[in-house]
Amino acid sequence: MSFAEATAVTPDGPGRYRAEIHEGWDIVGNANGGYMAVIAARAASEAGGGRQPATVTAHFLAPGRPGSVSIETHVEKAGRRFTTVRATLADGARPLVSLLGGFADDSVAVDSVERIEAEPPPMPPPQDCVPIEPTETFPPPFMGKVELRLHPEDATFDAGVPRFRGWFRLRAEEPIDGFGLLQAVDAFPPTVYNAQLPIAWTPTLELTAHIRGRPEPGWLRCLFATRFISGGYLEADGEVWDGSSRLVAQSRQLALLPDV
Amino acid sequence: MSFAEATAVTPDGPGRYRAEIHEGWDIVGNANGGYMAVIAARAASEAGGGRQPATVTAHFLAPGRPGSVSIETHVEKAGRRFTTVRATLADGARPLVSLLGGFADDSVAVDSVERIEAEPPPMPPPQDCVPIEPTETFPPPFMGKVELRLHPEDATFDAGVPRFRGWFRLRAEEPIDGFGLLQAVDAFPPTVYNAQLPIAWTPTLELTAHIRGRPEPGWLRCLFATRFISGGYLEADGEVWDGSSRLVAQSRQLALLPDV
Repeated sequence: MSFAEATAVTPDGPGRYRAEIHEGWDIVGNANGGYMAVIAARAASEAGGGRQPATVTAHFLAPGRPGSVSIETHVEKAGRRFTTVRATLADGARPLVSLLGGFADDSVAVDSVERIEAEPPPMPPPQDCVPIEPTETFPPPFMGKVELRLHPEDATFDAGVPRFRGWFRLRAEEPIDGFGLLQAVDAFPPTVYNAQLPIAWTPTLELTAHIRGRPEPGWLRCLFATRFISGGYLEADGEVWDGSSRLVAQSRQLALLPDV
Repeated sequence: MSFAEATAVTPDGPGRYRAEIHEGWDIVGNANGGYMAVIAARAASEAGGGRQPATVTAHFLAPGRPGSVSIETHVEKAGRRFTTVRATLADGARPLVSLLGGFADDSVAVDSVERIEAEPPPMPPPQDCVPIEPTETFPPPFMGKVELRLHPEDATFDAGVPRFRGWFRLRAEEPIDGFGLLQAVDAFPPTVYNAQLPIAWTPTLELTAHIRGRPEPGWLRCLFATRFISGGYLEADGEVWDGSSRLVAQSRQLALLPDV
Protein backbone atom coordinates (compact mmCIF):
# COMPACT_ATOMS: atom_id res chain seq x y z
CA MET A 1 0.00 0.00 0.00
CA SER A 2 1.38 3.38 -1.02
CA PHE A 3 1.72 6.38 1.28
CA ALA A 4 -1.02 8.10 -0.74
CA GLU A 5 -3.34 5.13 -0.15
CA ALA A 6 -2.41 4.81 3.52
CA THR A 7 -3.33 8.47 4.14
CA ALA A 8 -6.33 8.78 1.80
CA VAL A 9 -9.55 10.48 2.91
CA THR A 10 -13.09 9.99 1.62
CA PRO A 11 -15.86 12.62 1.72
CA ASP A 12 -18.54 11.79 4.26
CA GLY A 13 -20.94 14.74 4.34
CA PRO A 14 -20.43 18.51 4.34
CA GLY A 15 -16.91 19.30 5.57
CA ARG A 16 -16.60 15.77 6.90
CA TYR A 17 -14.23 13.01 5.82
CA ARG A 18 -13.45 9.51 6.88
CA ALA A 19 -10.15 7.72 6.77
CA GLU A 20 -8.35 4.73 8.12
CA ILE A 21 -5.36 4.56 10.44
CA HIS A 22 -3.66 1.59 8.81
CA GLU A 23 -1.71 -1.13 10.52
CA GLY A 24 2.04 -0.73 10.70
CA TRP A 25 2.28 3.06 10.83
CA ASP A 26 2.83 2.91 14.58
CA ILE A 27 5.55 3.45 17.13
CA VAL A 28 5.03 0.79 19.82
CA GLY A 29 1.32 0.58 19.05
CA ASN A 30 0.52 4.27 18.61
CA ALA A 31 0.22 5.75 15.13
CA ASN A 32 3.06 8.06 14.16
CA GLY A 33 2.06 11.70 14.68
CA GLY A 34 3.17 12.89 11.26
CA TYR A 35 1.14 10.12 9.66
CA MET A 36 -2.03 11.23 11.48
CA ALA A 37 -1.25 14.86 10.67
CA VAL A 38 -1.04 13.96 6.98
CA ILE A 39 -4.49 12.35 7.09
CA ALA A 40 -5.96 15.43 8.80
CA ALA A 41 -4.11 17.74 6.38
CA ARG A 42 -5.45 15.84 3.37
CA ALA A 43 -8.99 16.34 4.64
CA ALA A 44 -8.32 20.03 5.32
CA SER A 45 -6.81 20.43 1.85
CA GLU A 46 -9.78 18.71 0.19
CA ALA A 47 -12.22 20.89 2.11
CA GLY A 48 -10.36 23.95 0.84
CA GLY A 49 -10.27 22.92 -2.81
CA GLY A 50 -7.24 20.65 -2.98
CA ARG A 51 -4.28 22.99 -2.59
CA GLN A 52 -0.92 21.90 -1.21
CA PRO A 53 0.06 22.49 2.44
CA ALA A 54 2.08 25.67 3.00
CA THR A 55 2.02 25.85 6.80
CA VAL A 56 0.46 23.16 8.95
CA THR A 57 0.24 23.00 12.73
CA ALA A 58 -0.95 19.82 14.42
CA HIS A 59 -1.65 19.38 18.12
CA PHE A 60 -1.61 15.77 19.27
CA LEU A 61 -4.38 15.10 21.76
CA ALA A 62 -4.48 11.33 22.16
CA PRO A 63 -2.76 8.25 20.73
CA GLY A 64 -4.17 6.80 17.50
CA ARG A 65 -4.78 3.11 16.95
CA PRO A 66 -5.49 1.28 13.70
CA GLY A 67 -9.10 1.63 12.59
CA SER A 68 -11.59 4.13 11.22
CA VAL A 69 -11.34 7.81 12.01
CA SER A 70 -13.36 10.85 11.02
CA ILE A 71 -12.12 14.33 10.19
CA GLU A 72 -14.31 17.40 10.67
CA THR A 73 -13.07 20.41 8.72
CA HIS A 74 -13.95 24.08 8.58
CA VAL A 75 -12.65 26.51 5.98
CA GLU A 76 -11.68 29.61 7.96
CA LYS A 77 -10.87 31.65 4.87
CA ALA A 78 -10.74 30.84 1.17
CA GLY A 79 -8.36 33.43 -0.22
CA ARG A 80 -6.80 34.02 -3.58
CA ARG A 81 -3.36 32.82 -2.57
CA PHE A 82 -4.08 30.97 0.69
CA THR A 83 -6.88 28.87 2.03
CA THR A 84 -6.92 28.46 5.79
CA VAL A 85 -8.63 25.39 7.17
CA ARG A 86 -8.96 23.80 10.57
CA ALA A 87 -9.57 20.11 11.05
CA THR A 88 -10.11 17.73 13.93
CA LEU A 89 -9.31 14.08 13.46
CA ALA A 90 -11.25 11.87 15.86
CA ASP A 91 -11.68 8.23 16.74
CA GLY A 92 -15.38 8.16 17.49
CA ALA A 93 -15.98 10.99 19.98
CA ARG A 94 -12.31 11.12 20.97
CA PRO A 95 -10.25 13.83 19.23
CA LEU A 96 -6.75 12.66 18.33
CA VAL A 97 -5.34 15.55 16.29
CA SER A 98 -6.35 19.18 16.01
CA LEU A 99 -4.92 20.86 12.94
CA LEU A 100 -4.73 24.36 11.55
CA GLY A 101 -3.34 24.74 8.06
CA GLY A 102 -2.68 27.25 5.34
CA PHE A 103 -2.82 25.79 1.84
CA ALA A 104 -1.56 27.30 -1.39
CA ASP A 105 -0.78 26.45 -4.96
CA ASP A 106 2.60 24.85 -5.41
CA SER A 107 4.54 28.00 -5.97
CA VAL A 108 3.43 31.34 -4.62
CA ALA A 109 6.17 33.65 -5.84
CA VAL A 110 8.83 31.99 -7.95
CA ASP A 111 10.30 35.30 -9.06
CA SER A 112 10.83 36.73 -5.60
CA VAL A 113 14.08 37.36 -3.77
CA GLU A 114 16.12 34.33 -2.68
CA ARG A 115 18.66 34.50 0.13
CA ILE A 116 19.80 31.54 2.17
CA GLU A 117 21.94 31.78 5.31
CA ALA A 118 22.44 28.04 5.62
CA GLU A 119 23.67 24.98 3.79
CA PRO A 120 22.32 21.46 3.53
CA PRO A 121 23.73 19.30 6.34
CA PRO A 122 26.85 17.51 5.10
CA MET A 123 26.34 13.74 4.98
CA PRO A 124 27.78 10.72 3.24
CA PRO A 125 25.66 9.56 0.28
CA PRO A 126 22.67 7.31 1.07
CA GLN A 127 24.58 4.10 0.21
CA ASP A 128 27.15 4.97 2.91
CA CYS A 129 24.54 5.76 5.55
CA VAL A 130 22.83 3.35 7.91
CA PRO A 131 19.42 2.00 6.90
CA ILE A 132 16.82 1.76 9.65
CA GLU A 133 14.84 -1.41 9.21
CA PRO A 134 11.93 -2.21 11.48
CA THR A 135 11.58 -5.00 13.96
CA GLU A 136 8.60 -5.93 16.11
CA THR A 137 9.84 -3.60 18.83
CA PHE A 138 12.69 -1.21 18.07
CA PRO A 139 13.08 0.18 15.48
CA PRO A 140 9.29 0.19 15.36
CA PRO A 141 7.02 -1.00 12.50
CA PHE A 142 6.61 2.57 11.21
CA MET A 143 10.18 2.44 9.96
CA GLY A 144 9.06 -0.13 7.39
CA LYS A 145 6.68 2.41 5.86
CA VAL A 146 9.32 5.01 5.08
CA GLU A 147 12.98 4.67 4.16
CA LEU A 148 15.54 6.26 6.44
CA ARG A 149 19.32 6.20 6.13
CA LEU A 150 21.04 7.74 9.13
CA HIS A 151 24.34 9.56 9.14
CA PRO A 152 26.79 6.96 10.53
CA GLU A 153 27.80 9.30 13.37
CA ASP A 154 24.14 9.57 14.44
CA ALA A 155 23.22 5.91 13.94
CA THR A 156 24.89 4.88 17.20
CA PHE A 157 22.03 6.35 19.27
CA ASP A 158 24.85 7.39 21.52
CA ALA A 159 26.26 10.47 19.80
CA GLY A 160 26.02 12.76 22.83
CA VAL A 161 24.21 15.41 20.80
CA PRO A 162 20.39 15.69 20.51
CA ARG A 163 20.43 15.45 16.71
CA PHE A 164 19.68 13.13 13.83
CA ARG A 165 20.88 13.64 10.29
CA GLY A 166 19.85 11.33 7.50
CA TRP A 167 18.13 10.63 4.22
CA PHE A 168 14.41 10.14 3.77
CA ARG A 169 12.28 8.77 0.99
CA LEU A 170 8.97 6.99 0.69
CA ARG A 171 8.99 3.28 -0.07
CA ALA A 172 9.02 2.30 -3.76
CA GLU A 173 10.35 5.81 -4.45
CA GLU A 174 6.82 7.20 -4.34
CA PRO A 175 6.94 10.88 -5.36
CA ILE A 176 6.93 13.36 -2.46
CA ASP A 177 4.67 16.41 -2.40
CA GLY A 178 3.72 18.67 0.49
CA PHE A 179 1.96 15.83 2.28
CA GLY A 180 5.01 13.60 1.95
CA LEU A 181 7.11 16.42 3.38
CA LEU A 182 4.75 16.67 6.34
CA GLN A 183 5.46 12.98 6.92
CA ALA A 184 9.22 13.49 6.45
CA VAL A 185 9.43 16.03 9.28
CA ASP A 186 8.07 13.49 11.76
CA ALA A 187 9.78 10.31 10.60
CA PHE A 188 13.12 10.34 12.39
CA PRO A 189 13.77 9.11 15.92
CA PRO A 190 13.38 11.68 18.73
CA THR A 191 16.50 13.84 18.88
CA VAL A 192 17.02 13.02 22.56
CA TYR A 193 17.75 9.40 21.63
CA ASN A 194 21.20 10.63 20.67
CA ALA A 195 21.70 12.86 23.70
CA GLN A 196 22.92 10.37 26.30
CA LEU A 197 20.14 11.51 28.59
CA PRO A 198 17.83 9.36 30.72
CA ILE A 199 14.81 10.07 28.54
CA ALA A 200 12.87 7.16 27.05
CA TRP A 201 10.19 9.01 25.15
CA THR A 202 9.14 12.59 24.47
CA PRO A 203 5.48 12.90 23.46
CA THR A 204 4.97 15.61 20.86
CA LEU A 205 2.45 18.26 21.80
CA GLU A 206 2.67 20.31 18.67
CA LEU A 207 4.25 20.09 15.24
CA THR A 208 4.45 22.94 12.75
CA ALA A 209 5.75 22.40 9.23
CA HIS A 210 6.41 25.02 6.60
CA ILE A 211 6.51 23.64 3.07
CA ARG A 212 8.80 25.71 0.84
CA GLY A 213 8.54 23.83 -2.43
CA ARG A 214 7.98 20.53 -4.17
CA PRO A 215 11.16 18.46 -3.98
CA GLU A 216 13.00 16.98 -6.91
CA PRO A 217 12.61 13.18 -7.12
CA GLY A 218 15.08 11.26 -4.98
CA TRP A 219 16.38 11.09 -1.46
CA LEU A 220 15.76 14.05 0.84
CA ARG A 221 18.52 15.28 3.11
CA CYS A 222 17.21 15.87 6.63
CA LEU A 223 18.43 17.41 9.86
CA PHE A 224 16.63 17.38 13.21
CA ALA A 225 18.20 19.05 16.20
CA THR A 226 17.30 20.26 19.68
CA ARG A 227 18.84 23.30 21.33
CA PHE A 228 16.67 23.84 24.38
CA ILE A 229 15.78 21.08 26.80
CA SER A 230 14.28 23.26 29.50
CA GLY A 231 11.21 24.18 31.46
CA GLY A 232 9.78 20.71 31.04
CA TYR A 233 9.82 20.94 27.25
CA LEU A 234 12.11 20.50 24.31
CA GLU A 235 11.84 21.65 20.74
CA ALA A 236 13.13 19.78 17.70
CA ASP A 237 13.87 21.86 14.63
CA GLY A 238 13.86 20.17 11.25
CA GLU A 239 15.17 21.02 7.82
CA VAL A 240 14.48 19.00 4.68
CA TRP A 241 16.55 19.63 1.56
CA ASP A 242 16.11 18.07 -1.87
CA GLY A 243 18.73 16.74 -4.28
CA SER A 244 19.26 20.16 -5.82
CA SER A 245 20.22 21.52 -2.37
CA ARG A 246 17.00 23.45 -2.05
CA LEU A 247 15.26 23.74 1.33
CA VAL A 248 11.82 22.21 0.78
CA ALA A 249 10.52 22.08 4.33
CA GLN A 250 11.24 23.49 7.76
CA SER A 251 9.66 22.20 10.94
CA ARG A 252 9.55 22.61 14.68
CA GLN A 253 8.04 20.32 17.28
CA LEU A 254 7.35 21.01 20.92
CA ALA A 255 7.62 17.86 22.99
CA LEU A 256 7.10 17.18 26.63
CA LEU A 257 9.88 16.00 28.90
CA PRO A 258 8.96 13.19 31.22
CA ASP A 259 9.40 13.80 34.92
CA VAL A 260 12.61 12.16 36.05
CA MET B 1 -4.18 51.73 29.41
CA SER B 2 -2.19 48.66 30.40
CA PHE B 3 -1.38 45.74 28.08
CA ALA B 4 -3.72 43.59 30.18
CA GLU B 5 -6.55 46.10 29.66
CA ALA B 6 -5.80 46.56 25.97
CA THR B 7 -6.07 42.80 25.36
CA ALA B 8 -8.91 41.97 27.78
CA VAL B 9 -11.79 39.73 26.77
CA THR B 10 -15.33 39.58 28.15
CA PRO B 11 -17.61 36.50 28.13
CA ASP B 12 -20.46 36.86 25.65
CA GLY B 13 -22.28 33.52 25.62
CA PRO B 14 -21.12 29.89 25.61
CA GLY B 15 -17.58 29.73 24.28
CA ARG B 16 -17.92 33.25 22.96
CA TYR B 17 -16.04 36.40 23.97
CA ARG B 18 -15.93 39.99 22.91
CA ALA B 19 -12.98 42.34 22.93
CA GLU B 20 -11.77 45.60 21.53
CA ILE B 21 -8.93 46.28 19.13
CA HIS B 22 -7.74 49.50 20.70
CA GLU B 23 -6.35 52.54 18.95
CA GLY B 24 -2.62 52.79 18.65
CA TRP B 25 -1.70 49.09 18.50
CA ASP B 26 -1.31 49.33 14.75
CA ILE B 27 1.40 49.28 12.12
CA VAL B 28 0.35 51.79 9.47
CA GLY B 29 -3.31 51.36 10.34
CA ASN B 30 -3.43 47.57 10.80
CA ALA B 31 -3.37 46.07 14.28
CA ASN B 32 -0.13 44.31 15.16
CA GLY B 33 -0.50 40.55 14.66
CA GLY B 34 0.91 39.57 18.02
CA TYR B 35 -1.53 41.95 19.71
CA MET B 36 -4.51 40.30 17.98
CA ALA B 37 -3.08 36.87 18.75
CA VAL B 38 -2.93 37.79 22.44
CA ILE B 39 -6.61 38.77 22.43
CA ALA B 40 -7.55 35.47 20.76
CA ALA B 41 -5.27 33.54 23.12
CA ARG B 42 -6.83 35.18 26.17
CA ALA B 43 -10.27 34.05 25.00
CA ALA B 44 -8.96 30.54 24.30
CA SER B 45 -7.32 30.42 27.71
CA GLU B 46 -10.49 31.60 29.45
CA ALA B 47 -12.56 29.01 27.60
CA GLY B 48 -10.16 26.33 28.79
CA GLY B 49 -10.14 27.37 32.44
CA GLY B 50 -7.55 30.14 32.54
CA ARG B 51 -4.24 28.35 32.07
CA GLN B 52 -1.18 30.02 30.60
CA PRO B 53 -0.22 29.60 26.93
CA ALA B 54 2.32 26.83 26.30
CA THR B 55 2.18 26.62 22.50
CA VAL B 56 0.11 28.98 20.41
CA THR B 57 -0.25 29.11 16.63
CA ALA B 58 -2.03 32.02 14.99
CA HIS B 59 -2.90 32.32 11.31
CA PHE B 60 -3.53 35.87 10.16
CA LEU B 61 -6.44 36.04 7.76
CA ALA B 62 -7.21 39.73 7.36
CA PRO B 63 -6.02 43.07 8.75
CA GLY B 64 -7.57 44.24 12.02
CA ARG B 65 -8.81 47.78 12.60
CA PRO B 66 -9.74 49.45 15.89
CA GLY B 67 -13.19 48.48 17.10
CA SER B 68 -15.17 45.59 18.53
CA VAL B 69 -14.28 42.01 17.72
CA SER B 70 -15.72 38.66 18.76
CA ILE B 71 -13.86 35.45 19.56
CA GLU B 72 -15.48 32.04 19.11
CA THR B 73 -13.67 29.31 21.02
CA HIS B 74 -13.89 25.55 21.18
CA VAL B 75 -12.11 23.40 23.74
CA GLU B 76 -10.66 20.51 21.72
CA LYS B 77 -9.42 18.66 24.78
CA ALA B 78 -9.34 19.47 28.48
CA GLY B 79 -6.50 17.34 29.78
CA ARG B 80 -4.75 17.02 33.08
CA ARG B 81 -1.61 18.83 31.98
CA PHE B 82 -2.73 20.53 28.77
CA THR B 83 -5.89 22.10 27.52
CA THR B 84 -6.13 22.48 23.75
CA VAL B 85 -8.39 25.19 22.43
CA ARG B 86 -9.08 26.68 19.03
CA ALA B 87 -10.36 30.22 18.60
CA THR B 88 -11.40 32.46 15.74
CA LEU B 89 -11.23 36.21 16.21
CA ALA B 90 -13.60 38.02 13.86
CA ASP B 91 -14.68 41.53 13.00
CA GLY B 92 -18.36 40.93 12.36
CA ALA B 93 -18.51 38.06 9.87
CA ARG B 94 -14.92 38.55 8.79
CA PRO B 95 -12.36 36.26 10.47
CA LEU B 96 -9.10 38.04 11.25
CA VAL B 97 -7.15 35.45 13.25
CA SER B 98 -7.50 31.70 13.56
CA LEU B 99 -5.70 30.30 16.58
CA LEU B 100 -4.86 26.89 17.95
CA GLY B 101 -3.32 26.77 21.40
CA GLY B 102 -2.16 24.43 24.09
CA PHE B 103 -2.45 25.84 27.60
CA ALA B 104 -0.84 24.58 30.77
CA ASP B 105 -0.12 25.55 34.32
CA ASP B 106 2.94 27.72 34.67
CA SER B 107 5.41 24.97 35.20
CA VAL B 108 4.85 21.48 33.88
CA ALA B 109 7.99 19.69 34.99
CA VAL B 110 10.37 21.77 37.03
CA ASP B 111 12.43 18.77 38.07
CA SER B 112 13.11 17.47 34.59
CA VAL B 113 16.38 17.46 32.67
CA GLU B 114 17.83 20.79 31.53
CA ARG B 115 20.27 21.08 28.67
CA ILE B 116 20.79 24.19 26.59
CA GLU B 117 22.86 24.31 23.40
CA ALA B 118 22.69 28.08 23.07
CA GLU B 119 23.41 31.31 24.88
CA PRO B 120 21.49 34.54 25.18
CA PRO B 121 22.40 36.91 22.34
CA PRO B 122 25.19 39.24 23.50
CA MET B 123 24.03 42.85 23.65
CA PRO B 124 24.96 46.08 25.36
CA PRO B 125 22.75 46.84 28.37
CA PRO B 126 19.40 48.56 27.67
CA GLN B 127 20.74 52.02 28.48
CA ASP B 128 23.35 51.61 25.72
CA CYS B 129 20.84 50.37 23.14
CA VAL B 130 18.66 52.45 20.83
CA PRO B 131 15.09 53.17 21.96
CA ILE B 132 12.42 52.95 19.28
CA GLU B 133 9.91 55.71 19.77
CA PRO B 134 6.84 56.01 17.60
CA THR B 135 5.94 58.70 15.14
CA GLU B 136 2.76 59.07 13.10
CA THR B 137 4.31 56.98 10.32
CA PHE B 138 7.57 55.14 10.97
CA PRO B 139 8.28 53.84 13.54
CA PRO B 140 4.57 53.16 13.78
CA PRO B 141 2.21 53.94 16.71
CA PHE B 142 2.47 50.35 18.00
CA MET B 143 6.00 51.12 19.16
CA GLY B 144 4.51 53.44 21.75
CA LYS B 145 2.67 50.53 23.35
CA VAL B 146 5.74 48.44 24.06
CA GLU B 147 9.31 49.41 24.87
CA LEU B 148 12.04 48.30 22.52
CA ARG B 149 15.75 49.02 22.71
CA LEU B 150 17.63 47.81 19.65
CA HIS B 151 21.20 46.60 19.55
CA PRO B 152 23.12 49.59 18.11
CA GLU B 153 24.42 47.45 15.22
CA ASP B 154 20.85 46.55 14.26
CA ALA B 155 19.32 49.99 14.80
CA THR B 156 20.68 51.28 11.50
CA PHE B 157 18.06 49.34 9.51
CA ASP B 158 20.95 48.79 7.15
CA ALA B 159 22.93 46.02 8.83
CA GLY B 160 23.01 43.73 5.81
CA VAL B 161 21.77 40.80 7.89
CA PRO B 162 18.06 39.85 8.29
CA ARG B 163 18.17 40.10 12.07
CA PHE B 164 17.11 42.24 14.99
CA ARG B 165 18.49 41.97 18.50
CA GLY B 166 17.15 44.06 21.31
CA TRP B 167 15.44 44.46 24.64
CA PHE B 168 11.69 44.29 25.20
CA ARG B 169 9.43 45.25 28.06
CA LEU B 170 5.89 46.43 28.46
CA ARG B 171 5.27 50.10 29.23
CA ALA B 172 5.23 51.06 32.91
CA GLU B 173 7.17 47.84 33.54
CA GLU B 174 3.93 45.85 33.54
CA PRO B 175 4.73 42.26 34.55
CA ILE B 176 5.07 39.81 31.65
CA ASP B 177 3.40 36.41 31.65
CA GLY B 178 2.77 34.01 28.76
CA PHE B 179 0.48 36.49 27.05
CA GLY B 180 3.11 39.22 27.29
CA LEU B 181 5.63 36.82 25.79
CA LEU B 182 3.26 36.14 22.90
CA GLN B 183 3.30 39.89 22.31
CA ALA B 184 7.08 40.06 22.67
CA VAL B 185 7.67 37.60 19.83
CA ASP B 186 5.82 39.86 17.39
CA ALA B 187 6.94 43.28 18.53
CA PHE B 188 10.20 43.84 16.64
CA PRO B 189 10.52 45.16 13.08
CA PRO B 190 10.51 42.55 10.29
CA THR B 191 13.96 40.97 10.03
CA VAL B 192 14.22 41.87 6.34
CA TYR B 193 14.32 45.56 7.26
CA ASN B 194 17.97 44.97 8.11
CA ALA B 195 18.76 42.86 5.06
CA GLN B 196 19.44 45.51 2.44
CA LEU B 197 16.85 43.87 0.23
CA PRO B 198 14.14 45.59 -1.83
CA ILE B 199 11.34 44.38 0.44
CA ALA B 200 8.98 46.91 1.99
CA TRP B 201 6.70 44.61 3.96
CA THR B 202 6.33 40.89 4.65
CA PRO B 203 2.82 39.94 5.78
CA THR B 204 2.87 37.19 8.38
CA LEU B 205 0.83 34.13 7.50
CA GLU B 206 1.50 32.17 10.63
CA LEU B 207 3.12 32.66 14.02
CA THR B 208 3.89 29.91 16.49
CA ALA B 209 5.18 30.69 19.97
CA HIS B 210 6.37 28.23 22.58
CA ILE B 211 6.31 29.59 26.10
CA ARG B 212 9.00 27.98 28.26
CA GLY B 213 8.51 29.80 31.53
CA ARG B 214 7.42 32.95 33.31
CA PRO B 215 10.18 35.55 33.02
CA GLU B 216 11.81 37.34 35.91
CA PRO B 217 10.78 41.00 36.13
CA GLY B 218 12.80 43.31 33.94
CA TRP B 219 13.95 43.71 30.37
CA LEU B 220 13.79 40.68 28.09
CA ARG B 221 16.67 39.95 25.73
CA CYS B 222 15.36 39.13 22.25
CA LEU B 223 16.75 37.82 18.99
CA PHE B 224 14.88 37.53 15.70
CA ALA B 225 16.63 36.16 12.63
CA THR B 226 15.84 34.80 9.20
CA ARG B 227 17.85 32.08 7.50
CA PHE B 228 15.73 31.16 4.51
CA ILE B 229 14.29 33.72 2.13
CA SER B 230 13.13 31.30 -0.54
CA GLY B 231 10.21 29.84 -2.44
CA GLY B 232 8.22 33.03 -1.95
CA TYR B 233 8.42 32.80 1.84
CA LEU B 234 10.65 33.64 4.72
CA GLU B 235 10.71 32.45 8.30
CA ALA B 236 11.73 34.54 11.30
CA ASP B 237 12.91 32.64 14.34
CA GLY B 238 12.71 34.30 17.71
CA GLU B 239 14.24 33.70 21.11
CA VAL B 240 13.30 35.57 24.27
CA TRP B 241 15.53 35.32 27.34
CA ASP B 242 14.94 36.79 30.76
CA GLY B 243 17.34 38.56 33.10
CA SER B 244 18.50 35.30 34.62
CA SER B 245 19.60 34.12 31.15
CA ARG B 246 16.75 31.64 30.92
CA LEU B 247 15.00 31.04 27.58
CA VAL B 248 11.35 31.95 28.25
CA ALA B 249 9.95 31.84 24.72
CA GLN B 250 10.80 30.58 21.28
CA SER B 251 8.93 31.57 18.15
CA ARG B 252 8.79 31.13 14.42
CA GLN B 253 6.82 33.11 11.88
CA LEU B 254 6.17 32.30 8.25
CA ALA B 255 5.82 35.44 6.18
CA LEU B 256 5.08 36.01 2.55
CA LEU B 257 7.54 37.66 0.21
CA PRO B 258 6.06 40.24 -2.07
CA ASP B 259 6.51 39.72 -5.79
CA VAL B 260 9.32 41.93 -7.02
